[in-house]
Amino acid sequence: MTSTIQSILDGNRLALSRLLTQVENNTPEGREALAALFPYTGHAHLIGVTGAPGTGKSSLVNQFALHLRKDDKRVAIVAVDPSSPFTGGAVLGDRVRMRDLAGDNGIFIRSMAARGSLGGLAATTAQVVQVFDAAGFDAVLIETVGAGQSEVDIARLAHTTLVIEAPGLGDEIQAIKAGILEIADILVINKADRPGVESTERALRSMLELAHPLRQVWNHHGRRYVVDAPPGNDGSDSPLWVPPICKTIATDGSGIPELAEAVARHAAHLRQSGDWVNRERARLRSETETLLQERLMQNFRQDVPEQAYHQVLEQIFQRRLSPWEAVEILLKRQK
Amino acid sequence: MTSTIQSILDGNRLALSRLLTQVENNTPEGREALAALFPYTGHAHLIGVTGAPGTGKSSLVNQFALHLRKDDKRVAIVAVDPSSPFTGGAVLGDRVRMRDLAGDNGIFIRSMAARGSLGGLAATTAQVVQVFDAAGFDAVLIETVGAGQSEVDIARLAHTTLVIEAPGLGDEIQAIKAGILEIADILVINKADRPGVESTERALRSMLELAHPLRQVWNHHGRRYVVDAPPGNDGSDSPLWVPPICKTIATDGSGIPELAEAVARHAAHLRQSGDWVNRERARLRSETETLLQERLMQNFRQDVPEQAYHQVLEQIFQRRLSPWEAVEILLKRQK
Repeated sequence: MTSTIQSILDGNRLALSRLLTQVENNTPEGREALAALFPYTGHAHLIGVTGAPGTGKSSLVNQFALHLRKDDKRVAIVAVDPSSPFTGGAVLGDRVRMRDLAGDNGIFIRSMAARGSLGGLAATTAQVVQVFDAAGFDAVLIETVGAGQSEVDIARLAHTTLVIEAPGLGDEIQAIKAGILEIADILVINKADRPGVESTERALRSMLELAHPLRQVWNHHGRRYVVDAPPGNDGSDSPLWVPPICKTIATDGSGIPELAEAVARHAAHLRQSGDWVNRERARLRSETETLLQERLMQNFRQDVPEQAYHQVLEQIFQRRLSPWEAVEILLKRQK
Repeated sequence: MTSTIQSILDGNRLALSRLLTQVENNTPEGREALAALFPYTGHAHLIGVTGAPGTGKSSLVNQFALHLRKDDKRVAIVAVDPSSPFTGGAVLGDRVRMRDLAGDNGIFIRSMAARGSLGGLAATTAQVVQVFDAAGFDAVLIETVGAGQSEVDIARLAHTTLVIEAPGLGDEIQAIKAGILEIADILVINKADRPGVESTERALRSMLELAHPLRQVWNHHGRRYVVDAPPGNDGSDSPLWVPPICKTIATDGSGIPELAEAVARHAAHLRQSGDWVNRERARLRSETETLLQERLMQNFRQDVPEQAYHQVLEQIFQRRLSPWEAVEILLKRQK
């Protein structure tokens, strides 16, 4: 085990790949290695990238990774696919495109598919990201399909979240449809050579202005709450981050340097405002609470005989016990 | 409290409305009433309705409810909005439209907005639905915006799930984009008087054919697993349900009777195949486990002093303890 850890810290790709599989399969070895690697984490810039299919998300991630490589940064890409068997084909295509990057030793790509619940996927993604962080990658790009809860979970995981739009996908802004506009730290209009880019930008700006009198704050649980802005608090000294809108054409690399600059500015903003630490703490706290909940449930199931548990469930099915009453009865059996 | 329960069972709308507020606010009175009402549940047909904005979902729900009223069925509508402050306006508009139905005593409409986590919203929705079920509503229509995890949660709640599409929303099928096509028991193409309805129908049919060699089964956790079909198992005796495609024009009511018929056929299929009971049991089991997890965490937080808990968290923040080690230390403190 110690040798695995050392290999990972030394940048051994095969050891890294094997450990990622163990982490994904939630093996005891995987968990042990995660614990041993934990002290080495906390250095990588975690960057979430999300957007609807058709926005050119994967190409953008590729180009952004290549740009970071020019500064000799080591980049990991975690492509998370919470989708159904129906969409498997399309996403596989994206992964094939990513092989452009596969010859480069400073880039490591890992695709992850949903195995059980989406909640489980978010937890496993967090662990995979921790492995990359410990392994010394400077940036971890976490790419997801833009649809709701999984993106919110990823916003909680990432320091910086990019939400990608593209012109010509219909009258509406896809990110608004999916309810993910408010997780954006940076808005990207990709395919900016297409007609309709001005109206997409106008729509995004008006959404941002609509949000202007509101302030989003992170509390120690890592949730964002929207509060009224204190008056006179929007001078230049304000710690408020207004998401910039970057225009890119991923296929030819236009706008990628400006996007990279915006990402670096956001990282600096997070460090200055103290939000870097706040987001990290919120993430670690939530991760710990999830683990705690799992272990409490495990202990409970060990303490209460399987048969007794199923008898109580059967009484619920017969409507002779409500779930609330059943839980109190089960808890007494544990003591 | 007993008088509240009796009022609800007697169909008192004011008592119902008050109890729903208590359930939404998770008050002790609300929980007590839920437990007391539980034996009266299990009769309503729970019908989930989901689809992207622009598909005319709310109008369809209205028309469907009016149709059920003709058979003198009592109908509850639970409109769940997991969206951000950005989309508040549009959804409010939908709710205003729903007032068409408000004069009818056999219809009860309840709008629910996300207050904390989406997970919490799903749990609260389940409880609100239970109240309507106990109050003797024959059908409970649960309407949600089509975006990912919240819809999957609702599929687990509903007996029958309708996924709504509309022509002309772009080249792609919205339900595929959002990864919710596979939760459909019935596919509805609304706005079927618009151009493009044939190509939408073709696209949906080819997705269904793609899924044809696969079988989705529910296990006792209520999750769907995709398994290979046993050979020779697609004769007419097969218990397999292939989602029908219904075409409707909600604004003038076209196709609504046929949709209602498909919904009734699905209910009959569920009862015949035993899936009605399976889905109910999966739902009750998952609800019980969620409650159990919450109570285990509550007990834990009561047993372990706040200060000790925060000291351990602090050590995680300092990277001196991994979350895994921290959890083991905390669990020992409880014993």
